[in-house]
Amino acid sequence: MPVNLAEPDPARLLPVTGVRLGATEANIRKPNRRDLLLIELAPGSRVAGVFTQNRFCAAPVTVCKQHLHPRAGDGIRALVVNTGNANAGTGEPGTRAALATCAAVARILGCEADQVLPFSTGVIMEELPVERIVAGLPACAANLGDANWLDAARAIMTTDTVPKAASRHLTLGGVSIAVTGISKGAGMIRPNMATMLGFIATDANVAHVVMERMIREVADHSFNCITVDGDTSTNDSLVLIATGKAGNAEIGSTEGGDYEALHAVVLSVAVELAQAIVRDGEGATKFISIAVENGSDVAECKAVAYAIAHSPLVKTAFFASDPNLGRILAAIGNAGVRDLDVNRIRLWLDDGLVAADGGRRPDYVEQEAARVMQQAEFAVRVDLARGSARATVWTCDFSYDYVRINADYRT
Amino acid sequence: MPVNLAEPDPARLLPVTGVRLGATEANIRKPNRRDLLLIELAPGSRVAGVFTQNRFCAAPVTVCKQHLHPRAGDGIRALVVNTGNANAGTGEPGTRAALATCAAVARILGCEADQVLPFSTGVIMEELPVERIVAGLPACAANLGDANWLDAARAIMTTDTVPKAASRHLTLGGVSIAVTGISKGAGMIRPNMATMLGFIATDANVAHVVMERMIREVADHSFNCITVDGDTSTNDSLVLIATGKAGNAEIGSTEGGDYEALHAVVLSVAVELAQAIVRDGEGATKFISIAVENGSDVAECKAVAYAIAHSPLVKTAFFASDPNLGRILAAIGNAGVRDLDVNRIRLWLDDGLVAADGGRRPDYVEQEAARVMQQAEFAVRVDLARGSARATVWTCDFSYDYVRINADYRT
Repeated sequence: MPVNLAEPDPARLLPVTGVRLGATEANIRKPNRRDLLLIELAPGSRVAGVFTQNRFCAAPVTVCKQHLHPRAGDGIRALVVNTGNANAGTGEPGTRAALATCAAVARILGCEADQVLPFSTGVIMEELPVERIVAGLPACAANLGDANWLDAARAIMTTDTVPKAASRHLTLGGVSIAVTGISKGAGMIRPNMATMLGFIATDANVAHVVMERMIREVADHSFNCITVDGDTSTNDSLVLIATGKAGNAEIGSTEGGDYEALHAVVLSVAVELAQAIVRDGEGATKFISIAVENGSDVAECKAVAYAIAHSPLVKTAFFASDPNLGRILAAIGNAGVRDLDVNRIRLWLDDGLVAADGGRRPDYVEQEAARVMQQAEFAVRVDLARGSARATVWTCDFSYDYVRINADYRT
Repeated sequence: MPVNLAEPDPARLLPVTGVRLGATEANIRKPNRRDLLLIELAPGSRVAGVFTQNRFCAAPVTVCKQHLHPRAGDGIRALVVNTGNANAGTGEPGTRAALATCAAVARILGCEADQVLPFSTGVIMEELPVERIVAGLPACAANLGDANWLDAARAIMTTDTVPKAASRHLTLGGVSIAVTGISKGAGMIRPNMATMLGFIATDANVAHVVMERMIREVADHSFNCITVDGDTSTNDSLVLIATGKAGNAEIGSTEGGDYEALHAVVLSVAVELAQAIVRDGEGATKFISIAVENGSDVAECKAVAYAIAHSPLVKTAFFASDPNLGRILAAIGNAGVRDLDVNRIRLWLDDGLVAADGGRRPDYVEQEAARVMQQAEFAVRVDLARGSARATVWTCDFSYDYVRINADYRT
């Protein structure tokens, strides 16, 4: 069961003017599930994206970059997303399959193939069944509507147990703006620049160069702060869409109140979507926030936070609600931070200081620490006492079900 | 059940002249188990060691370095090893406890405290019960004998299911030389310079400076090539003892046939002891050798091999005998190798080429790949096609039992 993660309420997912969504069952891998999503964008929409840093990036990621780059994100008219097959590790035939998908969408919507962005998620190294995608697209087009965000979130699920969607509203210069997004992902989650798949749309009017900056900043403080198992996927993509249909004055720079206001709302949606992925992490029973502060720089704070978040010994102790502080300290010692003085490190579980001076606090009470770790959600805080930088990473525990899910995934 | 790992035959463990071993039940953490080992060395013995790189190194590791350094490994008369408590993350009181243990051994054997090396393994961040160790030492001393290698291996076990010992024989200049070693470890295993605990003794006569070089080279090609869960322990120590009692002409340099011959035999013992740790890895059902070749340098070959060996997704696929090649390729893509051309990479399972040109081989047959992975022992081979360096890492799979063992460890 996901931790503190309810199904989104469709009534709270605001439509975004200029964005229509339609899903269908295309039988890509398994019957009787919606596995194909078409997102249609009104003319004039702009798109910016960040993508996986895995060297084995998937064919659709390569095609997305090719289609975004020459037009600087202007003129994109559609996104097409399939589950069941990642079209990764598929070589040159995989690229042709992604391009064929774009061409099929273009024929239906009456645009050019390079105005379409393709996304795939699912099993790696299997040939993409393009003909099933092409056969399913007319049904997607027939289903297009601006109220279908929850359907869309459901159509991009793989090992997710709950659809993930979030929505916010703001006002810029008296104009009402909507920001709505969806995401998916539960395993192979340690995004680097982006998550498995995340799509955030707004009807705000924003210059493309500003969107590029915004999506990078937002990714760094949302999807790039989560980890389930430390494996960066071949398909990670986070996309920001701005249709410009709200009618606000164009946000043309990253200075000023309008940028700040929109950035804050987009970040808030992104954090909710990113945290939803961790809460729904494969086999997760707990959501853990790991904050590392007073490091020399952000990089070493993140290194320490990820060393804790990726240690199988720490993650199984989280699962067991076992305050095995030694495993956490050993992980800190393994993070590769040079000249770390371990005797100055302090460690908290929620608000309780449990370790300092190279060992446990004299007033440490194991039952109290265990009580903190029995919660569905708790915080680990580390003070490195070396500087003033900080970083936070969100992760989950490591349970029997993680092994079950990943040993059974393809069978 | 450990993979291909039988209990050592005590008749095959050669005594090493000048080394006597004695174990006892000291009730350090649990009753009715041998948890304290004393190794007495004859005068004139030399000792060299390599230790954990974890910044939270344990108190006994600090004391070992202090006792080895000023006398350059000469004059060490005893090693004392306890299980049940790692004396790590214990601050200044932990150092005092390790020194008190040395002093107690010195009183019994009639030597100085700084001629004793202390080793501890077990739970982290608990106070070392020095009084129980001191109370147990007379029984250890009473049990000292040169045929007790298997008893010694058993006395240093923690979550190990099988004692680990290996022995070889060689002749140098007509003189018969014995090399016998023991090791322990099953979790928190990704040694960096050394393993959890490994002790290798020979009666060869070797200069200390030569031993220092030999133990580093041996560690790099044995204990530093294994990983169970990617966590480097706070207590890792690998120690080479040379009593000089065999009577061969002193090996005074790393040039020449005698060095080569002894090095080869010590390495062979170390590899057997290191692989035994992986075969007995917590929850392990399979032993997997991961060879990466034709990299630019050894560091990138090791990075790729460890990325595969540490991926929870790859390890659970190993457990399921699921040839999910995409997970292996994704791990290679995540290894942080700059400018890696993924289309040139080739991947083998045992002798079968399964992936090339950025995807699966056209003649790939999944059932054949699954058959390879169903074996208790198999090899993954990766050709990076960038240079001529190579590295091999040995690891195990990731099963339900890994979670069970680590969620239950302290309870």
